[in-house]
Amino acid sequence: MVPEFLRQGSKRAVIDLGADFRFRRVEIYEEWYKVTHAAPSLLVEAVYGLPELYREEIKTARIVGNPGCYPTASLLGMAPLLKAGVVKEGPVIVDAKSGVSGAGRSPKADLQYAEMDANFRAYGLVRHRHTPEIEEEAGRVAGREVRVVFTPHLVPVSRGLFATIHLPAARALSDAELFHIYRDFYAGEPFVVPLPEPFLPQTKGVLFTNRCQLAARFDPRTGQIIVLSALDNLVKGAAGQAVQNMNILYGFDETLGLTAPGIWP
Amino acid sequence: MVPEFLRQGSKRAVIDLGADFRFRRVEIYEEWYKVTHAAPSLLVEAVYGLPELYREEIKTARIVGNPGCYPTASLLGMAPLLKAGVVKEGPVIVDAKSGVSGAGRSPKADLQYAEMDANFRAYGLVRHRHTPEIEEEAGRVAGREVRVVFTPHLVPVSRGLFATIHLPAARALSDAELFHIYRDFYAGEPFVVPLPEPFLPQTKGVLFTNRCQLAARFDPRTGQIIVLSALDNLVKGAAGQAVQNMNILYGFDETLGLTAPGIWP
Amino acid sequence: MVPEFLRQGSKRAVIDLGADFRFRRVEIYEEWYKVTHAAPSLLVEAVYGLPELYREEIKTARIVGNPGCYPTASLLGMAPLLKAGVVKEGPVIVDAKSGVSGAGRSPKADLQYAEMDANFRAYGLVRHRHTPEIEEEAGRVAGREVRVVFTPHLVPVSRGLFATIHLPAARALSDAELFHIYRDFYAGEPFVVPLPEPFLPQTKGVLFTNRCQLAARFDPRTGQIIVLSALDNLVKGAAGQAVQNMNILYGFDETLGLTAPGIWP
Amino acid sequence: MVPEFLRQGSKRAVIDLGADFRFRRVEIYEEWYKVTHAAPSLLVEAVYGLPELYREEIKTARIVGNPGCYPTASLLGMAPLLKAGVVKEGPVIVDAKSGVSGAGRSPKADLQYAEMDANFRAYGLVRHRHTPEIEEEAGRVAGREVRVVFTPHLVPVSRGLFATIHLPAARALSDAELFHIYRDFYAGEPFVVPLPEPFLPQTKGVLFTNRCQLAARFDPRTGQIIVLSALDNLVKGAAGQAVQNMNILYGFDETLGLTAPGIWP
Repeated sequence: MVPEFLRQGSKRAVIDLGADFRFRRVEIYEEWYKVTHAAPSLLVEAVYGLPELYREEIKTARIVGNPGCYPTASLLGMAPLLKAGVVKEGPVIVDAKSGVSGAGRSPKADLQYAEMDANFRAYGLVRHRHTPEIEEEAGRVAGREVRVVFTPHLVPVSRGLFATIHLPAARALSDAELFHIYRDFYAGEPFVVPLPEPFLPQTKGVLFTNRCQLAARFDPRTGQIIVLSALDNLVKGAAGQAVQNMNILYGFDETLGLTAPGIWP
Repeated sequence: MVPEFLRQGSKRAVIDLGADFRFRRVEIYEEWYKVTHAAPSLLVEAVYGLPELYREEIKTARIVGNPGCYPTASLLGMAPLLKAGVVKEGPVIVDAKSGVSGAGRSPKADLQYAEMDANFRAYGLVRHRHTPEIEEEAGRVAGREVRVVFTPHLVPVSRGLFATIHLPAARALSDAELFHIYRDFYAGEPFVVPLPEPFLPQTKGVLFTNRCQLAARFDPRTGQIIVLSALDNLVKGAAGQAVQNMNILYGFDETLGLTAPGIWP
Repeated sequence: MVPEFLRQGSKRAVIDLGADFRFRRVEIYEEWYKVTHAAPSLLVEAVYGLPELYREEIKTARIVGNPGCYPTASLLGMAPLLKAGVVKEGPVIVDAKSGVSGAGRSPKADLQYAEMDANFRAYGLVRHRHTPEIEEEAGRVAGREVRVVFTPHLVPVSRGLFATIHLPAARALSDAELFHIYRDFYAGEPFVVPLPEPFLPQTKGVLFTNRCQLAARFDPRTGQIIVLSALDNLVKGAAGQAVQNMNILYGFDETLGLTAPGIWP
Repeated sequence: MVPEFLRQGSKRAVIDLGADFRFRRVEIYEEWYKVTHAAPSLLVEAVYGLPELYREEIKTARIVGNPGCYPTASLLGMAPLLKAGVVKEGPVIVDAKSGVSGAGRSPKADLQYAEMDANFRAYGLVRHRHTPEIEEEAGRVAGREVRVVFTPHLVPVSRGLFATIHLPAARALSDAELFHIYRDFYAGEPFVVPLPEPFLPQTKGVLFTNRCQLAARFDPRTGQIIVLSALDNLVKGAAGQAVQNMNILYGFDETLGLTAPGIWP
């Protein structure tokens, strides 16, 4: 529908919540989604809709490929470290946990209350479709190829998303240094909240808001950096991010409509 | 299917989990269920499958109409008082709360995890189909007509059923006297557990068991008796009760297959 | 502390979230709370802080006794019927269900997640302290004594309160007539939402808002009216109502600070 | 207390649910637990109480150090691969998620229902005390040092534990080959259930049982093996395992008292 919308003279842009305009290389999209792209010639006009990485490009974009919950939490969590050059080669492990609303509204037997209640499980191992999207954008930030192992889980809550990311460190880092990397990278950002030691993200701290909470720790015994990233999959992980992109496109205050206080301050 | 099963020479009986053989008067069934009964001539052979009221009849029955969760909790809660003659005329109020599994396994939008989670609501007001079944059996115990206002609710748990019953008292009663009425009525019953003061039923105390917990209190200010009744809708409220009926029919130990310990002792 | 606050020249009033200024007759407070009132002479200056009943008095009050969740849900549910004279003598049955936050923040063993999860139970039978508060205010609306049987329950949700109220009807009423009684009584009210047939209240429809949803049905078989009332115990049932009272006292827009959208529209 | 119990002539052995006898090297225990060991001379008599690894030694042990939920799930998940030699050098990432009962019964503000409900979070990053226990036992199985990054999480369920383990593969493996490694390693084990493709573990499949469900997948893109391990933290992760050890010590049938069916077959 995007080409049709653009032809109808939509003044500025289409913000697409689907996956079609999140990839730069059509062959990656087609390989992972097992479909033929319906409008590959438009890909050059598309911008990846993560404002913290592409705010300037979004301002003048005609198509914004709005990222979903898993890539948003993962990329906001790892981008500062990749940019700072403190991650060495080797797979990045993303262990992500999502509330049930992330699976959509169509009634399914295994998402009924009585099935999902008290239950906890992984799904989509090894080849989940969000893997290449995270890899492509992580690679652009890092300036080199980044390989990601992405394992999603379903937890018995309505909403909320939590990503635990393990990255091999290029050198030893203090927790204070890690915090400064995040604080500087996200300086001025209205919706990204790096937490200083000893605080750690929790989903209830971001529910019903467009915020993403972040924290990172270095493990000197193994040389790994552990990053925690929490957001509400229905706000910063979807519709809230689309509103944020719309605000940027139209020159509105970027926080317009996105200032509801949440449950916990 | 019941006539067909009986014709095929099934040795003893059919235990029917549907509603067709729970009523003595076909017109009540047809009025509340809005269908024509398929085998009204068999009604005289059917016994209402609540062992605590009809154990002797079940032993030789050809058809057992196995009651569901709401009537079982309601009738076990009110029968001792009706039998003892301590309830005066006037409507009996049954406010019942059920876990989501009570609504069946077919996927429905309003029973999806993300809809039902954190939610709480009433449904089926005024004319819920279990009303006449409770009235008919309560009337038989009381030896007079009993009118019931039955209001079911859905609570966000997988399983468990709790009925709060208000009955107008014929006279003042102490809590000890109430307990003795229950203790005597259910003497020797393996699955009904009247609780002495100060204990009150809770669903977690009966989950995964065939037990029903009961307690009653008298309110001298209003002359009402408040009865609490808790059971697991998937065990004593359905399949467990059917197994209990089968054990009675076949002369097995009545607790066979029904002795799993539950969560809380 | 209230006398001290008033002496310190607090310009307008004290909004008290405790129970001390919710009663007109000190002996009722002292009987049910088992304490001696610390400032009985101030009771004549106190107004019961339910804006839908006492908005005019609140405007000039020096003390507002802010009602809690159970009385607010109960009184908003029964006031229109009592005022309209369609309720006859006889006990009013209030079966109320509250989320766990209603029990306060002090850590208690039986409110720990692992105890309360999947559990459902009644408490405080027969003599819960909110009973006389509901009776006193209901009686004032009705212009006669009203007796209430109040049975609270705890359900495994963080927040949300649902009251199911049974009242004996003075005459037959249609559901449409019942709706009109509520619609007229609450005409212009910003936070009370009577629902027309076939809609029924549910807690998720009011969570995080200052709204109260209401619906009523008449049962011709038993002559009872069943009223459903849902609110968020932490907003309209407590802090939100206090803010509403503050807005009234200071002449602010009554909805100031209370327009957050909730989860469901 | 263990020395005292042994002195009192306890016929066979002490099964200790604490951490004191889970380590072979007293200095590791003392470093991570920040206490001085009270009976280091008894360590040589202690056996690590994981029957699937040390059944023969447990039969004649005087002290069994009963492992808890995290090490049990982690070690059952990684042992077959370490033994088979298909894991190369490099940190093993264990992302583990536990129900709230894993945090004990003492009332704590952050474990109250209203705090923990709908919430999801990590804790104890980098230096959780179960790390060295997992490393020591994993190293013994592997015949070389194994480094583990262990990150525990709390999920809003009463019980259930799920570990997602990432190990660097020494070579490419098919999913069938992985299944055979697990099936052979656990041949004859009554409580460990490797699942063939396409099944994956889920906590509801093991709740209330002494079972551990396992599955593994190879990711050819990154050379990582992902292992999923699910158990009930209150049974196989604690008391059930202690009963299993007691059965072994006394020569009872190893499944005695541990055959309750659980929720799902």
